[in-house]
Amino acid sequence: MKAEEYVKDSERLDDLMRNGYKIIQNPDKFCFGMDAVLLTSFVSLKKGDIVLDLGTGTGVIPILLSAKSGAAHFDALEIQSESVNMANRSVQLNQLEKKITIKQGDIKEASLLFSPDSYDAITCNPPYMIDRHGLKNPDTPKAIARHEILCTFDDVARESAKLLKGKGRLYLVHRPFRLVELFATLTKYHLEPKRMRLVYPYIDREPNMVLIEAVKDGGSMIKQEAPLIIYRESGVYTDEVIALYEG
Amino acid sequence: MKAEEYVKDSERLDDLMRNGYKIIQNPDKFCFGMDAVLLTSFVSLKKGDIVLDLGTGTGVIPILLSAKSGAAHFDALEIQSESVNMANRSVQLNQLEKKITIKQGDIKEASLLFSPDSYDAITCNPPYMIDRHGLKNPDTPKAIARHEILCTFDDVARESAKLLKGKGRLYLVHRPFRLVELFATLTKYHLEPKRMRLVYPYIDREPNMVLIEAVKDGGSMIKQEAPLIIYRESGVYTDEVIALYEG
Repeated sequence: MKAEEYVKDSERLDDLMRNGYKIIQNPDKFCFGMDAVLLTSFVSLKKGDIVLDLGTGTGVIPILLSAKSGAAHFDALEIQSESVNMANRSVQLNQLEKKITIKQGDIKEASLLFSPDSYDAITCNPPYMIDRHGLKNPDTPKAIARHEILCTFDDVARESAKLLKGKGRLYLVHRPFRLVELFATLTKYHLEPKRMRLVYPYIDREPNMVLIEAVKDGGSMIKQEAPLIIYRESGVYTDEVIALYEG
Repeated sequence: MKAEEYVKDSERLDDLMRNGYKIIQNPDKFCFGMDAVLLTSFVSLKKGDIVLDLGTGTGVIPILLSAKSGAAHFDALEIQSESVNMANRSVQLNQLEKKITIKQGDIKEASLLFSPDSYDAITCNPPYMIDRHGLKNPDTPKAIARHEILCTFDDVARESAKLLKGKGRLYLVHRPFRLVELFATLTKYHLEPKRMRLVYPYIDREPNMVLIEAVKDGGSMIKQEAPLIIYRESGVYTDEVIALYEG
């Protein structure tokens, strides 16, 4: 079967520029953003790691990570059936069925759907926005991916803490304006923030993303990394971002 | 009396490059660093503000801030008598006696030495290091200024919370590796971190300082600022840092 045959009307097939992997997305619903790509570049996986992606959407994070890591297996959880369907077809067309398993279900119940204390690493690109005000259509795929409608950050942290092995790592991308709350929620569940990187769109602008690695039962002290700057000038990526997209 | 007549042997007189203000320091003991200067540039004072500096050393922070703000008065607390003595002479030689009052005493008891609920803003450049291991001389002025020997960060936060008015602001410079603990301690005393800026020595290096503004009984959500980068290349300050030193 040709790659194109996996793609339905109104969907499109995008090249992930890694290992020749491709991904099916529906631009009317939700397409992955730079945040997912930056998160995969921040994640550090070891050979043989068992990994879980919470709220995987179309599966972009496990697909990208399977291309650049020696992890043994990726489980991925997604609540929206259309996304699960697209993710499954993307896994098939990339012939990753042995490496990636997509499951439909709710992050709030993740520790009932997967084995507790069994993951070396969990990745999550959660909904960023607390606020539902002004949302005309809170049940659209975009709204669900961006706003805490079906799950909160507390749910992500609580379930991750249950699912990780001791010293297991949770990798997150989130919004810097919630940093105080993110730290408080993570430490409440004994997920100690150990590494962090702020992402600045330009060298003279405020950061719009933060990458965090938290370790289950880790000691205190956080390693802060060099700034990740996206654009050298309008429309021109910095060398680091170019390198990152080229894998 | 000439400025030089205020200066004792082994001390030196440095130009602060603001309003012609000068400061007496003893290089054998402790000299203020860039952290104090960066903190004063991060502080935002309003006309008529009543301000307190905790652990003022030779008084550099209130002297610099009195040059660039319309604050009504600065109190300043310092435990080491030699530093108090130098700070008092610097206040006199700059003719700031009506604006700055230096008091000798212990941060741990600050809320007994000054009036509770009375400050619009508190500034503090506290000792950064938790670790006393390997300190040969833990009672030297340098050790006391750099290590948590006479007071901890918890003491600074607790006393600040007592001394600030409602919605009063605490301005801090500290080390990024302690960020998780700093946030936890501040929020424990209802000092909500509302603004933060990471200081990177170079654009491609990890940050070595963090500037924080916490507001007593403030709401959640922190505003993160553009990166503050110190050197354009080895030995050459960025334009922002040059502008900052030129006041």
